[in-house]
Amino acid sequence: MSMQFDGWPHVIRVQQFSREWLETQFLPLTNEMQAIVDNRGCQILSGRKMICLFYQPSTRTRMSFEFAMRYLGGDVAFTTENAREFSSAKKGETFGDTLMVINRYRPDVIVIRYDQEFDPKFVTETSQAPVINAGDRGMGQHPTQALLDLRTISKRRGKIDGLKIAMVGDLDQGRTVRSLSYMLGKFCDVTIYFVSPSNAKMGQDVKDYLKKHDIFFEELVDLREVASVVDVVYQTRVQIECGTVIDKSQGYFTIDKTVLDLMREDAIIMHPLPRVDEISVEVDGDPRAVYLTDQIDSGLYARMALLKMILA
Amino acid sequence: MSMQFDGWPHVIRVQQFSREWLETQFLPLTNEMQAIVDNRGCQILSGRKMICLFYQPSTRTRMSFEFAMRYLGGDVAFTTENAREFSSAKKGETFGDTLMVINRYRPDVIVIRYDQEFDPKFVTETSQAPVINAGDRGMGQHPTQALLDLRTISKRRGKIDGLKIAMVGDLDQGRTVRSLSYMLGKFCDVTIYFVSPSNAKMGQDVKDYLKKHDIFFEELVDLREVASVVDVVYQTRVQIECGTVIDKSQGYFTIDKTVLDLMREDAIIMHPLPRVDEISVEVDGDPRAVYLTDQIDSGLYARMALLKMILA
Amino acid sequence: MSMQFDGWPHVIRVQQFSREWLETQFLPLTNEMQAIVDNRGCQILSGRKMICLFYQPSTRTRMSFEFAMRYLGGDVAFTTENAREFSSAKKGETFGDTLMVINRYRPDVIVIRYDQEFDPKFVTETSQAPVINAGDRGMGQHPTQALLDLRTISKRRGKIDGLKIAMVGDLDQGRTVRSLSYMLGKFCDVTIYFVSPSNAKMGQDVKDYLKKHDIFFEELVDLREVASVVDVVYQTRVQIECGTVIDKSQGYFTIDKTVLDLMREDAIIMHPLPRVDEISVEVDGDPRAVYLTDQIDSGLYARMALLKMILA
Repeated sequence: MSMQFDGWPHVIRVQQFSREWLETQFLPLTNEMQAIVDNRGCQILSGRKMICLFYQPSTRTRMSFEFAMRYLGGDVAFTTENAREFSSAKKGETFGDTLMVINRYRPDVIVIRYDQEFDPKFVTETSQAPVINAGDRGMGQHPTQALLDLRTISKRRGKIDGLKIAMVGDLDQGRTVRSLSYMLGKFCDVTIYFVSPSNAKMGQDVKDYLKKHDIFFEELVDLREVASVVDVVYQTRVQIECGTVIDKSQGYFTIDKTVLDLMREDAIIMHPLPRVDEISVEVDGDPRAVYLTDQIDSGLYARMALLKMILA
Repeated sequence: MSMQFDGWPHVIRVQQFSREWLETQFLPLTNEMQAIVDNRGCQILSGRKMICLFYQPSTRTRMSFEFAMRYLGGDVAFTTENAREFSSAKKGETFGDTLMVINRYRPDVIVIRYDQEFDPKFVTETSQAPVINAGDRGMGQHPTQALLDLRTISKRRGKIDGLKIAMVGDLDQGRTVRSLSYMLGKFCDVTIYFVSPSNAKMGQDVKDYLKKHDIFFEELVDLREVASVVDVVYQTRVQIECGTVIDKSQGYFTIDKTVLDLMREDAIIMHPLPRVDEISVEVDGDPRAVYLTDQIDSGLYARMALLKMILA
Repeated sequence: MSMQFDGWPHVIRVQQFSREWLETQFLPLTNEMQAIVDNRGCQILSGRKMICLFYQPSTRTRMSFEFAMRYLGGDVAFTTENAREFSSAKKGETFGDTLMVINRYRPDVIVIRYDQEFDPKFVTETSQAPVINAGDRGMGQHPTQALLDLRTISKRRGKIDGLKIAMVGDLDQGRTVRSLSYMLGKFCDVTIYFVSPSNAKMGQDVKDYLKKHDIFFEELVDLREVASVVDVVYQTRVQIECGTVIDKSQGYFTIDKTVLDLMREDAIIMHPLPRVDEISVEVDGDPRAVYLTDQIDSGLYARMALLKMILA
């Protein structure tokens, strides 16, 4: 029972977490972390050093990791948000050289947002320091997002087994919905509705994985069809920087008052943020909306829990 | 008697400071802060967390705030100088979402340089953590600059009442002279000379405010006309990035040896920096020049004083 | 016997270090620093404040300095990697104004990567805080790189006197080989082979210096000619950002299996990094390759040693 990746405590893919580890170790520890934040932090990681190396900017994710480290008393020894533009990478250095050099400074953990797909075998062979994937590209994932999403759902709904979840929007490019799908594959009787236009459908690799794990899923184009039955609506942002365009005439992909009125009282509305206009601001004040509240909090607690497990 | 903004300890506009607060609380506290820096810092803000969110780069202002926090023993928990380009803002996120998310990490204070105009009501409604305006745009201000300018003048001239001040250059775009004008409106018998070409005159809102507060002002185009009578010459940089062009043939807007020779021995020369060529380098060594010395120091002490009042 | 520059403890040029200081103070202190890192750091610079001001990005050098400061318990009080683009410099501020302003915050040391050539006299006159040159342009140098290179060679070869060193590649633009040449000029019986195409030959100033200090050097175009006799091959990256193009048909400038097979068993292969393709990856695993290991470590220890000498 562990979260180890190929013998090393790297955090690279959602697949590496066992259901037992998630339920008996990770989720309880997030509650301990919440208590630490309520007490304004602790010093259990005093003297431990984190490097944040972001090849793509992500103020939000970086801030969450850095606050997580600080609430545990650790140091953010080095951080850069534009590693691709500003670093040796621009001069042609390979990722392997960068990772080897960084390891010589003996950091305790390296958090990497990568603009390509991680090769887990390569990371394991190259980095002595534990690496946490803060989002990678290609067929990539965002495992700490999946952990925070799991924690958010678990806290609000009490369980994962048997839940019905609609994932909406740009499912093709969204690493968060990809990661969450892999996460849900570890549970039982889960039903997933993929609501997206035809040019942004969920990838075949995820669908194959779900089939293999007996997770029922259905693809549709109108959120209103399932809004009244789901426990969770997980909305995503259109990745315009990836060239995706959502053709709204193809279906109904926005969470607005119409969808809100259809939804059950005990359902929740999630979004990995940043949000543009795929959730109307009129939804923000609804008690079912957790994207500006519980999800952010769970992100902090989830990353603190990982750091404590890896470093303490 | 307070500096509170609408019930919250935000620092948004110069108008929110009362003369009594400035004289009995703020200015004395800046002297205490100077003593702390002389003693190489203290720990009264130990464990307190600052976020610096700059939508426009300003190495100088950010450095002043960060050193202020560190001299008090606090943590700069997160800092970014290009929030507009590098953050979720580029992906279309609203300022409100950003502010709400940041608040979930429970920072003790958020310092924001904003590339639009702050809506104080919106900030008050959205942010539980105190926000300090490190400069906003539009009809915006730079309240901590006004505080440091006030402290600089007060230390060197002993009082504000009755002083004569020339503000020179790009008065239209300069938030520092706008903020200082609002500040001077709280005092008595102050005379302001606005020295600028016709395309860069002080805004009507400031002039209306000064009239309302019985501050005499005059607009002219030749600094030499008033150089011999003023206690303070406050020079400003041409905001070329805002498209302003100063037509030097329209008047006399540069501080050089000619102006220096006209000025009184007890007058002072101020500039918010960065300086380009609107003050000749031959002026730098003159004891009346305070822009590379007293003003920087006062900026550190003023920001320390604010942080102590808000956080300690 | 000192490393002082013109009465101030600035670190600007390799020429300022005496052989005696290097051998009796600097090198022994780097070993002490290694022991501190092995013990996970110390607190001897607790409360001391470093500013990192990089006018050109260099993630690697900045990380080395920042970790050096942290392993000694000091604070990186302010850091920016794009001072030219993001700071007041873009608005036309002079370097002198910037340096004067920064000094007002009373940092204990200022680390500067500069995109022009340092004027040591100007730095000495302007900055009360010690300045460490983290690389400057023009006829500039990279003195801490030369110190780490010296330490690397000294540890692996036991001495400098009598060594034969090939410097390969873009010798014209490379400040590391320039700085190392000045460093070697302090020792006896050293032989340098400059291996470069005709458009990237070592500058005349360095060659004049070497002649003056009786260092034998030879210029050639085929690394294979000297590979079997040298103690050190120091490879450099082509500075494509400076417009340099290496015409490989002119000679043999790459370190690959062919060169490796020619080299002595006790020789070492160095590179200041980042490496592109001028050293084949097949060389990386060879015990003679020190560019991804010993050189990085020595960089950390060398910078720690400097910081301790300047600040403790």
